[in-house]
Amino acid sequence: MSTSLAAVIHRLGAEARQSCKGDKNSMKLLKVTLVSLVLGVPAFAQGNTNMSTPLESASALSTADIQSVSPALGRYAQEDVADSLWQRPQLSRRDRSIVTVAILIARNQTLDLSHYMNIALDSGVKPRELSEIITHLAFYAGWSNAMSAVSVAKDVFAQRRIGPDQLPAASPQLLPLNEQAEAKRVTSVQRLLGTASPGLDQYTTDPLFKDVWLRPDLSPRDRSLVTITSLMANGQVAQLSGHLNRALDNGLTQEQAGEVITQIAFYAGWPNAFSAGPVAAEVFRSRPN
Amino acid sequence: MSTSLAAVIHRLGAEARQSCKGDKNSMKLLKVTLVSLVLGVPAFAQGNTNMSTPLESASALSTADIQSVSPALGRYAQEDVADSLWQRPQLSRRDRSIVTVAILIARNQTLDLSHYMNIALDSGVKPRELSEIITHLAFYAGWSNAMSAVSVAKDVFAQRRIGPDQLPAASPQLLPLNEQAEAKRVTSVQRLLGTASPGLDQYTTDPLFKDVWLRPDLSPRDRSLVTITSLMANGQVAQLSGHLNRALDNGLTQEQAGEVITQIAFYAGWPNAFSAGPVAAEVFRSRPN
Amino acid sequence: MSTSLAAVIHRLGAEARQSCKGDKNSMKLLKVTLVSLVLGVPAFAQGNTNMSTPLESASALSTADIQSVSPALGRYAQEDVADSLWQRPQLSRRDRSIVTVAILIARNQTLDLSHYMNIALDSGVKPRELSEIITHLAFYAGWSNAMSAVSVAKDVFAQRRIGPDQLPAASPQLLPLNEQAEAKRVTSVQRLLGTASPGLDQYTTDPLFKDVWLRPDLSPRDRSLVTITSLMANGQVAQLSGHLNRALDNGLTQEQAGEVITQIAFYAGWPNAFSAGPVAAEVFRSRPN
Repeated sequence: MSTSLAAVIHRLGAEARQSCKGDKNSMKLLKVTLVSLVLGVPAFAQGNTNMSTPLESASALSTADIQSVSPALGRYAQEDVADSLWQRPQLSRRDRSIVTVAILIARNQTLDLSHYMNIALDSGVKPRELSEIITHLAFYAGWSNAMSAVSVAKDVFAQRRIGPDQLPAASPQLLPLNEQAEAKRVTSVQRLLGTASPGLDQYTTDPLFKDVWLRPDLSPRDRSLVTITSLMANGQVAQLSGHLNRALDNGLTQEQAGEVITQIAFYAGWPNAFSAGPVAAEVFRSRPN
Repeated sequence: MSTSLAAVIHRLGAEARQSCKGDKNSMKLLKVTLVSLVLGVPAFAQGNTNMSTPLESASALSTADIQSVSPALGRYAQEDVADSLWQRPQLSRRDRSIVTVAILIARNQTLDLSHYMNIALDSGVKPRELSEIITHLAFYAGWSNAMSAVSVAKDVFAQRRIGPDQLPAASPQLLPLNEQAEAKRVTSVQRLLGTASPGLDQYTTDPLFKDVWLRPDLSPRDRSLVTITSLMANGQVAQLSGHLNRALDNGLTQEQAGEVITQIAFYAGWPNAFSAGPVAAEVFRSRPN
Repeated sequence: MSTSLAAVIHRLGAEARQSCKGDKNSMKLLKVTLVSLVLGVPAFAQGNTNMSTPLESASALSTADIQSVSPALGRYAQEDVADSLWQRPQLSRRDRSIVTVAILIARNQTLDLSHYMNIALDSGVKPRELSEIITHLAFYAGWSNAMSAVSVAKDVFAQRRIGPDQLPAASPQLLPLNEQAEAKRVTSVQRLLGTASPGLDQYTTDPLFKDVWLRPDLSPRDRSLVTITSLMANGQVAQLSGHLNRALDNGLTQEQAGEVITQIAFYAGWPNAFSAGPVAAEVFRSRPN
C-alpha cells in the first residue's frame, strides 16, 4: 500500500470521525466502508498482512486524555510508536500486532488489550489464530492471564460477529510430532527436574508438547513467536535460550527475533528488552548463519 | 469421600442448577443443603479437607464464555484442570486451594480470586486462615497485592456472613520463637546486606520474623506453603532455596512441594514452574531423606 | 515542621472528618484550608518537602474494610507503615511518595494509585514532576503501565484543577548531554547486544537517552530515583547495578538508596527488597565513600 493511499485512508478516517458522533466501532465501520469503496476491494483482505497504514492510536485512551497528563507521551505515541516503531520493515504489521497482544496478555494488562486485538484482526491475524494465541498463553503465561484475555476477546468477537464457525475445534487433527526434537526435550527436562515434580513432567508432555504445540490453527513459527514474546515480556530469561533456538528452527528469522526485542522495549519496558538482548546475541552467535 | 458419593453431589448440583434460576450463591447454598440432607452431616465439616468432589469450574467465567473464544481452553479446563490436576492425591484439595489463592494474590489477579476463595472456604480452609494468608502475603507479595485481596475478600466474607468473631485477633498470643533458627537467619541477612539497608534489617526482624511468622492462626507449615508459592508464582528463585528448606523443616513433604510446582505450572505459567523445578531438585538432593 | 504542629494538623483533620459528611476530597480541602489559616501560609509551599504529618491512611481502602478481613493488617498499616516507615528521616516524605507512586506504576497496581498520587502532590511533588514520572516509566516499565497511570492521573489532575499550564511542554529545551557518560553507555550497550537488535540500539539512544533523560522538568537525580525504584519493584536486578551507580552519580545518597529498599519491602514485597539489597551492598562497597 503506497504512502499516498495511506494518507487518503487517514483523511477519510478523520472525516468519518468529524461527521459521525456515534461510537468508535461505528466510526471504524464507516471508515472501512469508505476505504473499500475507494479501493474497490475488501479493505482488509486476507493476504494483506504487511500494511503500512499508520497506527491510528497507540492506546485505547484518547490523545486528549494522554495529553491532559503528559504532552510528552502524546508526542512519543505519535513520533516514536505510531509513525516509527510500527512502520519498521523488520517485522510485518501482522507479526507486530501478535507480539503486542502477546505482551499484554502475558503481563495481564487489559486496558489496551481490546484495542490491540482489533488492530491484530485488522492486520491479517485470523480469529482462529487469536483464539490459539490465548490458548497457548494459558500455558506459558498462566491460566488467569488467559481468562482475562477471554473476557476481553469475547466482546471483541461478539462486536465483529465472529462465531463458532471461525474458531478452532476443541480437538482437531494434530500436526505430526517431531519425535527427535521431542526425545531431546524429554532428556533436557529430565536433567533439569529429576524426580522433583512428576506432575510437571507429565503435563509438560501431555497436554503441552503432545497436544497444544501440535494444534494446527497456529503455525509452529507463530507459536514460537508468542512463546519467546511471553518469556521476554516477563523477564523470564532462564527459558529464553531454548525457546529462541526452537523459534529459529521453526522459521523465525534472526532479524525478526531482534525486532521482537525492540517491540518489547516499548510495550514491556526497556529493562526486559535489555535482559533479552544479550541472550539473543549469544543464541545468534552460536548458530550457523 | 467415595467416588460414587462425589457423583451424587455432582448430580444434585446439576439438578439445583437446572431448577433454580437464582444467582450463583443461592444455587450453591441449595446444593450444600441438599448434600447435607443426603449425608445427614454438615457438608463441609472441619476435618473434611481432602474431598474429591470434582472442581465445578476452573474460572469465574462461564464455560460458554470460555468456549466463545477458545473451545480448546474449555476442554483443557475440564479434562486437565478440573478432572485431572485437582484430583491428584499428592496435594489435598485444601492445600491446592491455598496454593491457588496465594498464586492469584501474589500475581495481583483479581478476576478469579473470589471464585477460588470460595473454593478454599468450601475445601476446609478456615476464614481465620484465609485472613492470615492475606496478611502474610502483604509482606511477601507487597502491600497493594494484599489491599486488592482485601477488596475481594471483604465481599466473600460478607456473603458468607463471616464476622469479626471468626477472624484472628490483631495482637494474639504469639507462638514461641525458635531462637536458633532466628540467630541463623540474622547472620544470613547480615552477610547478604551488610549495612546497605538498616531499615530492611529492622523490619525483617520486627514485624516480619518476630511477629507475622509467629501469629498462631496459620500454622508455620501453611505459612511456608504460602511463602514458597508466592516466590514461585513470581519467578523469585533467589529466595526460594532458603524458604523451601524452611518449608520442609516446617513439615511440608517433598512430594507436596513438588506438586506445588505442578499447580504453579497451570496457574502461574510453565516458565515459572520450570524456574522453580531445578531449585527444588537441588534442595531435595541436599537433604537427608 | 515541629511534631506539635503536626499534631494540630492531625486534630484539625480529624475534626473536619467528624463535622463534614461530604466526600473525601472536600474534607481534604477543608483540612488544607484550616491548616493554611493556622499557619498563615500556604500549607503546601514549595520548599516544604519533608513534612512529618502522619500518613492518614496506607490505602484507598478504609480502615473498616481492611479490618473486616484482617485486623492484623489494620494494625500493621498504622503501627508499621503510617507511624513508622513514613516517619523515617532517611528519605523525605516527598521522595518516599515518589518511590511509592513509581512502585505502583511499575507493577501496574491501580487500586491505591490515586491515593498515593494525592499524597505525592500533597507532599511537595509538583504536577509537572508527576507528569514526567509517568512519562519516564513509559520507557522503564512499559507503555501500558504508563497508560494505566494516565487513566488515573487525569482524574486526579481534573479534581485538583491542574491544567495544561502546569504540565511540561511536549518538546522543551533539553538539559545538556554529558557526552562522556553517553559514550560510555553506548560502548556498554554495544558489548551487551552486538548486532542482535538494531532497533533497541536506535531507540535507546533516541528518544531514551538523548531526549527523555534530558527533559528538564524532573531532575536527573529524581529520574534515577524513579528508575532504580522501577527496577527493584519488578525484581529486575540485571540492570540495577548500572542504574544505581548512575543514581549515586546524580546525587542520590547511599543512605537514601538503602531506604528506597526499605520502602520496596513494604510496597513491592520482601523478596524484591532482598533481591535488591545485595546488589546495593556490592555497589556501595565498590565506590569511594
